[in-house]
Amino acid sequence: MDKRIEKQLAFSLEIDKVKNIFRQTHLSGYGRNENDAEHSWHMAIMAYLLREYSNEDIDIAKVMLMCLIHDIVEIDAGDTYAYDAEALQSQKAREDAAKQRIFAILPEEQAQELIALFDEFEEYETAESKFAHAMDNIQPLILNNSNNGGDWREHDVTVEQIYKRQSKTKLGSEKLFEITDCIIQENVKKGNLK
Amino acid sequence: MDKRIEKQLAFSLEIDKVKNIFRQTHLSGYGRNENDAEHSWHMAIMAYLLREYSNEDIDIAKVMLMCLIHDIVEIDAGDTYAYDAEALQSQKAREDAAKQRIFAILPEEQAQELIALFDEFEEYETAESKFAHAMDNIQPLILNNSNNGGDWREHDVTVEQIYKRQSKTKLGSEKLFEITDCIIQENVKKGNLK
Repeated sequence: MDKRIEKQLAFSLEIDKVKNIFRQTHLSGYGRNENDAEHSWHMAIMAYLLREYSNEDIDIAKVMLMCLIHDIVEIDAGDTYAYDAEALQSQKAREDAAKQRIFAILPEEQAQELIALFDEFEEYETAESKFAHAMDNIQPLILNNSNNGGDWREHDVTVEQIYKRQSKTKLGSEKLFEITDCIIQENVKKGNLK
Repeated sequence: MDKRIEKQLAFSLEIDKVKNIFRQTHLSGYGRNENDAEHSWHMAIMAYLLREYSNEDIDIAKVMLMCLIHDIVEIDAGDTYAYDAEALQSQKAREDAAKQRIFAILPEEQAQELIALFDEFEEYETAESKFAHAMDNIQPLILNNSNNGGDWREHDVTVEQIYKRQSKTKLGSEKLFEITDCIIQENVKKGNLK
């Protein structure tokens, strides 16, 4: 087997571990915790189906790929819960080390490409990054809403905390933020958010 | 909420169920069984990284979307093991009924688009379909190879059965079939395939 394809297949096997990184979000129907591979798959399909609501023109293939790879670093860095202030402080350092190790398994130019795509996602500046982040917010929101806010109640999430994160959805999509806002307000009324 | 976005979000929630459709393949490291969402996520990333090995020019965004949605019908139809002759006979009828119900949750033109994409995958005729099928074959192959052929041994899979399925990888990629062939031959030597 030549070196190039050997590296590509080694990386393909390595990312299987993403399926064992579990998030705080539960599947619909009060199911088990969701893992990063499932979350990323879900985000990529939603990005495609909801792309008409992006504020700006986007390269949808790039957004989908960004969704698919954005959590690969969590193989080493672990999942950081959106409302865990302490873990959020060390998140960048942990994820930077992880991206260097994991993407380096690929042939050099593919490693650089995926690192650049991951960095673009994190920097939250391009239209594609903003729309991918909107998916990263709305995907767990619809699951949690379908579960009567179980994850928010479990972690005593406040209205202030959820708006701090979810209001950034409007950077990617004003329309999807309107929907987000409705869902949050309904959950406030139901007592699911403090 | 307007009707269109309501349908799009209802479909987004419906497909969460794909995460509960488990396959015969086990995760690397002799892990648990893999589910369809994880498998589809893995295929889509592999398609992107291995696209240079496609026999023909492909629209990679289309291939990735095809990978992401190709198992959604299994919410209703269940997973059909590649080497279960009896289940394979009823597979088409079960999946056709499923696609009509599930994709119809979307706005009409998006439903038609995803049904057409699913049908294109199943028909195995276009360059995109052939390459997506190559991913559908090689993704479980590398997991199973990493697990010393555990799934093949569990189901007494024969060399003839595996070549019947895996040899179609060459329709999408001669190069990836060469690799597939090496992996199969190694597993024959180890006694993992009868």
